[in-house]
Amino acid sequence: MELLEKYIREYGKYKDGGIVIVNSFLNHRMDVDLIDEIGKDFFARFEKDAPTLILTVEASGIGIACMTARYFGVPVLFAKKSQSKNMSGELYSAPVMSFTKGGLNYVSVCSEFITSKDKVLIIDDFLADGNAVNGMLNICEQAGAEVVGVGICVEKYFQKGGSTLREQGVNLYSQAILDLDENGNIVFVHM
Amino acid sequence: MELLEKYIREYGKYKDGGIVIVNSFLNHRMDVDLIDEIGKDFFARFEKDAPTLILTVEASGIGIACMTARYFGVPVLFAKKSQSKNMSGELYSAPVMSFTKGGLNYVSVCSEFITSKDKVLIIDDFLADGNAVNGMLNICEQAGAEVVGVGICVEKYFQKGGSTLREQGVNLYSQAILDLDENGNIVFVHM
Repeated sequence: MELLEKYIREYGKYKDGGIVIVNSFLNHRMDVDLIDEIGKDFFARFEKDAPTLILTVEASGIGIACMTARYFGVPVLFAKKSQSKNMSGELYSAPVMSFTKGGLNYVSVCSEFITSKDKVLIIDDFLADGNAVNGMLNICEQAGAEVVGVGICVEKYFQKGGSTLREQGVNLYSQAILDLDENGNIVFVHM
Repeated sequence: MELLEKYIREYGKYKDGGIVIVNSFLNHRMDVDLIDEIGKDFFARFEKDAPTLILTVEASGIGIACMTARYFGVPVLFAKKSQSKNMSGELYSAPVMSFTKGGLNYVSVCSEFITSKDKVLIIDDFLADGNAVNGMLNICEQAGAEVVGVGICVEKYFQKGGSTLREQGVNLYSQAILDLDENGNIVFVHM
């Protein structure tokens, strides 16, 4: 997605260890015009897959999922990282290792909100080792729901998440795919 | 806001201790058509206050803030509950006691994204004792930013947050205000 690559080139920052900082427009301060275009782009790519539900995980994915869901006219379900008093009834839970925060968390959804009739589009801001996406795939499997696609804003090609999902035959679309060249500089990959 | 009251009446659930469960449409599963109307309603109420930034706190506020920001054409900044590697530079932090999860957390924003030139509209899904809103007011004060309004989806009138903010002269608008009658049943308050 050209507009997102432009934002990353102009406003992204890089730290050692493969950390890409896009917090000025995507996952802390959010440029809502960009997020709306991101939603429109996901709709263009996944419209034919006719999802009935968009699944994401708190926190950064929620705004992107909502702006995307508006185009599809379907609800969003966001998995929670800690069990709060607002969660009720049976849960589906999956373990997720966090790349940016470190440590193992469980993500959970109330089982009443995802069923075997659902065709699920998974949306998230980042794909690195694929831990969050795998947690959501795990939840869909527990629910017996079909995953019709996975939409990612920024994929880090130098980590294993994307290639593993593609090998598994997952219908993955990443709007911007970043790799490191031999000098450790960020380059965009186009597939 | 009539539509939100209708959703709360039809789909809300209640637990002892003043817990109102709206997780089927507002803060876990999100009915995006409703959230869009919520954003439109906030725009109608706060358009004249001309905010330059919408501030919320992760996680449930983010989707609502994004759908609202689309009407205003301004960015969203969401305060983070834990410091991740995605946060860089100087931070403004404020302590927040969580009603639904228990315990004291700090919420933080990168100081570069909120300045003394900003006119801030604070948006959140719930107002109970006012802890999250007070944390965000604290952050705005540290930044020297003007708070032009506070927009809340569901205010619990039987807790002190709303009345305290009104006494302080805060420009507060709650879309649905819930109180408990003498039998402990939920009733709507209209101001």
